[in-house]
Amino acid sequence: MAAGTAPRQLLEPLKRSTQESFRIEYDTFGELKVPSDKYYGAQTVRSTMNFKIGGVSERMPVQVIRAFGILKRAAAEVNQDYGLDPKIANAIVKAADEVAEGKLNDHFPLVVWQTGSGTQTNMNVNEVISNRAIEIMGGKLGSKIPVHPNDHVNKSQSSNDTFPTAMHIAAAQEVNEVLLPGLKKLQNALEAKSKEFSQIIKIGRTHTQDAVPLTLGQEFSGYVQQIKYGVARIESTMPRVYQLAAGGTAVGTGLNTRIGFAEKVAAKVAELTGLPFVTAPNKFEALAAHDALVELSGAMNTVACSLMKIANDIRFLGSGPRSGLGELILPENEPGSSIMPGKVNPTQCEAVTMVAAQVMGNHVAVTVGGSNGHFELNVFKPMMIKNVLNSARLLGDVCVSFTDNCVVGIQANTDRINKLMSESLMLVTALNPHIGYDKAAKIAKTAHKEGTTLKEAAIKLGFLTSDQFDQWVKPKDMLGPQ
Amino acid sequence: MAAGTAPRQLLEPLKRSTQESFRIEYDTFGELKVPSDKYYGAQTVRSTMNFKIGGVSERMPVQVIRAFGILKRAAAEVNQDYGLDPKIANAIVKAADEVAEGKLNDHFPLVVWQTGSGTQTNMNVNEVISNRAIEIMGGKLGSKIPVHPNDHVNKSQSSNDTFPTAMHIAAAQEVNEVLLPGLKKLQNALEAKSKEFSQIIKIGRTHTQDAVPLTLGQEFSGYVQQIKYGVARIESTMPRVYQLAAGGTAVGTGLNTRIGFAEKVAAKVAELTGLPFVTAPNKFEALAAHDALVELSGAMNTVACSLMKIANDIRFLGSGPRSGLGELILPENEPGSSIMPGKVNPTQCEAVTMVAAQVMGNHVAVTVGGSNGHFELNVFKPMMIKNVLNSARLLGDVCVSFTDNCVVGIQANTDRINKLMSESLMLVTALNPHIGYDKAAKIAKTAHKEGTTLKEAAIKLGFLTSDQFDQWVKPKDMLGPQ
Amino acid sequence: MAAGTAPRQLLEPLKRSTQESFRIEYDTFGELKVPSDKYYGAQTVRSTMNFKIGGVSERMPVQVIRAFGILKRAAAEVNQDYGLDPKIANAIVKAADEVAEGKLNDHFPLVVWQTGSGTQTNMNVNEVISNRAIEIMGGKLGSKIPVHPNDHVNKSQSSNDTFPTAMHIAAAQEVNEVLLPGLKKLQNALEAKSKEFSQIIKIGRTHTQDAVPLTLGQEFSGYVQQIKYGVARIESTMPRVYQLAAGGTAVGTGLNTRIGFAEKVAAKVAELTGLPFVTAPNKFEALAAHDALVELSGAMNTVACSLMKIANDIRFLGSGPRSGLGELILPENEPGSSIMPGKVNPTQCEAVTMVAAQVMGNHVAVTVGGSNGHFELNVFKPMMIKNVLNSARLLGDVCVSFTDNCVVGIQANTDRINKLMSESLMLVTALNPHIGYDKAAKIAKTAHKEGTTLKEAAIKLGFLTSDQFDQWVKPKDMLGPQ
Amino acid sequence: MAAGTAPRQLLEPLKRSTQESFRIEYDTFGELKVPSDKYYGAQTVRSTMNFKIGGVSERMPVQVIRAFGILKRAAAEVNQDYGLDPKIANAIVKAADEVAEGKLNDHFPLVVWQTGSGTQTNMNVNEVISNRAIEIMGGKLGSKIPVHPNDHVNKSQSSNDTFPTAMHIAAAQEVNEVLLPGLKKLQNALEAKSKEFSQIIKIGRTHTQDAVPLTLGQEFSGYVQQIKYGVARIESTMPRVYQLAAGGTAVGTGLNTRIGFAEKVAAKVAELTGLPFVTAPNKFEALAAHDALVELSGAMNTVACSLMKIANDIRFLGSGPRSGLGELILPENEPGSSIMPGKVNPTQCEAVTMVAAQVMGNHVAVTVGGSNGHFELNVFKPMMIKNVLNSARLLGDVCVSFTDNCVVGIQANTDRINKLMSESLMLVTALNPHIGYDKAAKIAKTAHKEGTTLKEAAIKLGFLTSDQFDQWVKPKDMLGPQ
Repeated sequence: MAAGTAPRQLLEPLKRSTQESFRIEYDTFGELKVPSDKYYGAQTVRSTMNFKIGGVSERMPVQVIRAFGILKRAAAEVNQDYGLDPKIANAIVKAADEVAEGKLNDHFPLVVWQTGSGTQTNMNVNEVISNRAIEIMGGKLGSKIPVHPNDHVNKSQSSNDTFPTAMHIAAAQEVNEVLLPGLKKLQNALEAKSKEFSQIIKIGRTHTQDAVPLTLGQEFSGYVQQIKYGVARIESTMPRVYQLAAGGTAVGTGLNTRIGFAEKVAAKVAELTGLPFVTAPNKFEALAAHDALVELSGAMNTVACSLMKIANDIRFLGSGPRSGLGELILPENEPGSSIMPGKVNPTQCEAVTMVAAQVMGNHVAVTVGGSNGHFELNVFKPMMIKNVLNSARLLGDVCVSFTDNCVVGIQANTDRINKLMSESLMLVTALNPHIGYDKAAKIAKTAHKEGTTLKEAAIKLGFLTSDQFDQWVKPKDMLGPQ
Repeated sequence: MAAGTAPRQLLEPLKRSTQESFRIEYDTFGELKVPSDKYYGAQTVRSTMNFKIGGVSERMPVQVIRAFGILKRAAAEVNQDYGLDPKIANAIVKAADEVAEGKLNDHFPLVVWQTGSGTQTNMNVNEVISNRAIEIMGGKLGSKIPVHPNDHVNKSQSSNDTFPTAMHIAAAQEVNEVLLPGLKKLQNALEAKSKEFSQIIKIGRTHTQDAVPLTLGQEFSGYVQQIKYGVARIESTMPRVYQLAAGGTAVGTGLNTRIGFAEKVAAKVAELTGLPFVTAPNKFEALAAHDALVELSGAMNTVACSLMKIANDIRFLGSGPRSGLGELILPENEPGSSIMPGKVNPTQCEAVTMVAAQVMGNHVAVTVGGSNGHFELNVFKPMMIKNVLNSARLLGDVCVSFTDNCVVGIQANTDRINKLMSESLMLVTALNPHIGYDKAAKIAKTAHKEGTTLKEAAIKLGFLTSDQFDQWVKPKDMLGPQ
Repeated sequence: MAAGTAPRQLLEPLKRSTQESFRIEYDTFGELKVPSDKYYGAQTVRSTMNFKIGGVSERMPVQVIRAFGILKRAAAEVNQDYGLDPKIANAIVKAADEVAEGKLNDHFPLVVWQTGSGTQTNMNVNEVISNRAIEIMGGKLGSKIPVHPNDHVNKSQSSNDTFPTAMHIAAAQEVNEVLLPGLKKLQNALEAKSKEFSQIIKIGRTHTQDAVPLTLGQEFSGYVQQIKYGVARIESTMPRVYQLAAGGTAVGTGLNTRIGFAEKVAAKVAELTGLPFVTAPNKFEALAAHDALVELSGAMNTVACSLMKIANDIRFLGSGPRSGLGELILPENEPGSSIMPGKVNPTQCEAVTMVAAQVMGNHVAVTVGGSNGHFELNVFKPMMIKNVLNSARLLGDVCVSFTDNCVVGIQANTDRINKLMSESLMLVTALNPHIGYDKAAKIAKTAHKEGTTLKEAAIKLGFLTSDQFDQWVKPKDMLGPQ
Repeated sequence: MAAGTAPRQLLEPLKRSTQESFRIEYDTFGELKVPSDKYYGAQTVRSTMNFKIGGVSERMPVQVIRAFGILKRAAAEVNQDYGLDPKIANAIVKAADEVAEGKLNDHFPLVVWQTGSGTQTNMNVNEVISNRAIEIMGGKLGSKIPVHPNDHVNKSQSSNDTFPTAMHIAAAQEVNEVLLPGLKKLQNALEAKSKEFSQIIKIGRTHTQDAVPLTLGQEFSGYVQQIKYGVARIESTMPRVYQLAAGGTAVGTGLNTRIGFAEKVAAKVAELTGLPFVTAPNKFEALAAHDALVELSGAMNTVACSLMKIANDIRFLGSGPRSGLGELILPENEPGSSIMPGKVNPTQCEAVTMVAAQVMGNHVAVTVGGSNGHFELNVFKPMMIKNVLNSARLLGDVCVSFTDNCVVGIQANTDRINKLMSESLMLVTALNPHIGYDKAAKIAKTAHKEGTTLKEAAIKLGFLTSDQFDQWVKPKDMLGPQ
């Protein structure tokens, strides 16, 4: 991108506008002072005045802003096909690229807690691109000449179709760039461990209580399957996320846009992102509901359940070092306690489970928002996409962190595993086909009560011989059907 | 099914066992009195003593019991292939069929709030089938001869794989028999309305405020799309629901079962149900997690959002009769008020939205349960399946009720629709391409402030001529791109 | 109550109305056939036809029906003060008493999934009481003479104020009769255990990992505190639950009722129930919102968190018998496995945690319903009270079950506890004040790495003498501040 | 605070440490490079390496950091009482004050998604205060001399008791400084409107349908009551939030602290904050569970329901301007649409409802985290407090924004209100006491069917005279009981 040095000059000083330098811009409500080092205009300023809610950390996610950059570029190019002055289109494309690349992030001060259609963020984008394009073309910031935020940057568009389009672009990118790679990395790491541990026979646990044996590799294979299916779950929701609302304009009819605009914009966005976006077959649904994001959030909620389970298992299996189950040795990454010297904790597991809880909460927020659309528009859009992006990002990141800082370094404590396995009373289950459930139960109960081995109890009760016991109760033979 | 007259005789009197007639049965914990008119045995009685939680309405859903009947029959047939005495197998098949057909529902008194593996319900099933099979073979109830509940009815099985198998069978059947037919029925009814209303132009509403027009048919087409995608969402989760845990036995290894048992049982269940069940590729995952049900619940949660939106729209569009929006005339089904004579309410919409809220709540219960499995077994099984079945049933039923008692009878109040549409200020949007956004805004604001029509305001402001207005502002031309 | 023999005669045969015997009743919509052995009338029948949703288990909770009985009796008595014919009032009182006592439960077939105001259940109550009162007075069922369901039984009332009144009565009773007694019973049992275990020093666990010691009694004291605060939490929400909507009639104004009616009815209900009910200070809020139930549900949600924590701890501390933590010995209540002979599981803990998950889900359903009221009426009433009652009942019941079948029988496995405690590396923490955190950490890490005791490592590293170690590291001295 | 110029010098340049200037610090795991312009040390750096999750917006809330500043100051002062060198104590106090005042916010880079005990943030605080205190005393950063992060700053403390203490301080402050003031401001504004509108009689709406009249003031009085109770709900949970864990150290026993330390620290914190903090009566509960925050979150969840209801009502009552209910005129704050000129939307209501949905989601995250503590420690601490603070802040802020930008400017559209009210069919309800429910119903139905007035229908049906109608049906007489 050759945007010239202009934006850099504007950006570099920045200085929080404390120098009290302003220009005057106007919207249909009147005039407003705009910091002279910012590209945004009156409507953005107005929003900062009307929505003082939650502070900087509550700003519209940058992924949404960047997705808007992609969309506005695509729209400008398609608008040029339909007659927009190529000079204007070209300037919009350049400015939109800068937005898409994150170069103008400081010009997007609005919080999520604004109008529920995201109109103010769409106008923020229109204003920034318009002013930056004006600047590129040598015009005066705030003049709306030669590039008008509504008539040119927003041409053939409405907030009502662009914001949901940006939502889907942002969500799809976060899923593809962060969430799925994170899950696949974790899946691979768990799979490697499953293979590494394939010969280690250990006690199984059901109801948290001793049960029949399995291999540690088999145990981990369940985790692999959960994550593998997690990937499949996410992917199965994406076809509907890849559908874009652009072209629906204000209520889904496509008023003030052109036949073919919707399809061309979707194709252009697909080209720019490398993702299989298409135009939504029904724009009324695409504006009035965000079921596709509720669905995606639901898939992430399922992944959160999987991760909670896996991380819980790993921390319990790694509990100790001396008073826990102690079957796994987890990597020691940091001092675990400010008061207990030498303590090491399963901190990566804790990050995973905290993220899982957050994703479950985010999902309810998305659900409540998704259920409360009215008529032609759902107005919980900014809140919904914030939560969806948060879930995708946290899940993807924590999978990477968990993999790198925990999973790959997990070791089996084979001494401990062997000891526990050999003492287990539930090996008695292998006797069922030979002596029946009721007699087997008596053996186990006797051994438990008297603190003896199963073999001792079995022989004492006279249900079988020592040789029979040795022949029938072999942990290695208990790992699969016969 | 020729089950003989015996079960009928037992069933017909029933009389709540108040006659104080008992037989003695035993489990590994000792003897217990069992009502003589019941097929269940000691473990079932023990559970009723240990889990007095919630009362009759909290019983294990009958769909789970019936699914167990299918599974136990399938297992018996496969066990016969592996050597089970055909006479015993045959008696089990007959008894299991009676369970599957719901004939023995009164013999399943256990509540959901029992052991989290559903072991007691599996044993309840084993006991009922064993005793009923004993009876068929002329034996003595409670003798476990010639049909033992564990050694024969539960052969090659564990609660840990049979209960999840029954969960998946029950869920898949409820989805296919109740949920999907309900959704499709509603989809069809909405689609018919969408076509019926295709020529009725009405005011659109965004942010609950007046917006540009669309047809009532277009508005309904959004609902159609939501439900259509709802069907797709449910269906996309089913591949994992069709995977059965049977053959995993206690911890997923398949201990005490036979090579091929898992595949054969799944095939048999598929045959008996007509649904494409297969054996789960990883039994460890299938016992230790119920992500497949969390996923299905997530899809139902999305459907709940769709239904909440649609029902809300319809009741608001049908609000009145004189002080509401009044665009739709909803069927009058019953007196609406015990104090306000003549009042009619959108009661079907209310049932829909209440069900939607319940499904969202059920989903959180399923999520919390699904996330809290430990090691080789998730022990929230009965709670999870109860909620999944409840959601599927309520959604399916309410779709049918909503369709039959509301949707098919919806009429458009065309007089009202026309009046509102023609007065709308947002028709001004059609002027954007001709005079630009800023001038158009002035027209709308002037008309709003002065209570005039758009045309009057436009001409007064001198932005266009009367002819231009008539040519440019045509609702019929505002229904799509040009 | 001397209700005469009439109702018994009607009730005893019952026979599911399969005898096809009907009478004709009418409502403002027309005539309908009513089973002749039922007291309900046309509006009830109409509801059963319009709302075929979910089946018998989805019926309006019987607690609501009984609360209605109390309310209708109270209203009749107050109406008599305001001029209602004493003979009619008297008959209504008798019939209402039968409803309150649960004698007429079979006459309330309606499901929760009806109109969101519960109007049909209010009318079901009005019809049953009217017909039963007519019968008592020697009239003809269905004639509405001499007792009219609307004009007499519902006098000065609307569904919109009676249903929320019944909701509050039912909730308050369930809380007082089931939930709070259950919690207090559990609190007492835990407190007894805390005292019993006050001298048993054990290893503490943080992050599931070994930490510094505490007594088992101290550990249980945390559980006691949680439940104690749970009681306080529930109680702190009750002042708003004790406020009754009765007297607000249709929209909160009290139209068609009398000055003083609201206060007198509340006083009468308080007298009948022994609970401190008062009239709601603002009837508009009492009809349009059910924040009081959301609040109560939130308190129950907190209790669910407490119970989940406690039950999880107890099952993990009781895990084993040979491969778990094994510090607690839990009562053995039933065979734990259909395949693993002799297995015993912490089934009561599982029931507790399943209930906890359900309560969390119910809470979301209540929240969604509570947030979606519109204008003068919230129409998620039946769904909300169903979930609130379900949570209260399940929590109360499971506390009793958990106490009786688990908590009171918990034993400390002191051998195991002592062994684990004495081996712990975290006793090193006691050295911090003497040698500083960094050196103490080196001791613990050395002992862990080399598999030695702390003392051996400490001496080897030369940080202190054997005597100093013995003097400074005393578990008994580590149980509190100095 | 006269902290000298040193911190300013360090802070002012800042420059993202891109200058690659480092010092070496160490923890018990080894050496690490620390940016030389930062006060934090090795453990903080280690955490940034191990937990790359979610980016800057996921940092530990600054309220927690500042609360830690208060706590560390209080602890230092109390430690001095117990013998800590006054020079060291004094330096810690100064440094802690800077933390409490937010002057060192840039030195706290850690994210929420770290260890679940918040240990790394406690250490971050210890390191920053230690280094800043060292600097004040003229020592060398990173030397731990003369102020050691663990032995001095963390003296008598553990992360396990300090982090929950900071959680409670932060939550209590946010509630008192943001949430409660916001709610009270809104309550007052609604109350003023309720009075202003006390004489405006309007149609009531139940089930979204026309009902009997009430005043607009009465309608708003319901909102007032909801918010008033919201304040009471929050306040009723605070006694348990005011309990501080400090003094429990690692597992609740208070090991390594001194008798009286807990009480003194709580008193000191109370003094510093002006809030009634006390020491928690049971430290085991205070570390292992965070029920108090789940409870507070539950109260905020209830408030969210109230706000959702109120904001929904206001936007629907203000819908239009020509095709909605149009009873309220809401302030016009900004252009509402990027495509529809002149459109004005209820954007403040949308911010409110989005916040409400977020709070409901946050509550589920808090619930899931709160339920998953194990043994002596809940390790969902950072996630829980993040969500609690977010809910408190968003609710408080949005109440202010909603009040200032919407509520205070709401006007009644009395022409519209009068028109709707006078046409309503539900005024018929006033006839019940005179002619009975059934005849009144016939009047309403006839008027509705024939599009006439009630009076016309009543006379036509011959149920009453014109004079009777005028005498009995007076909206002014329908606003209360008689």
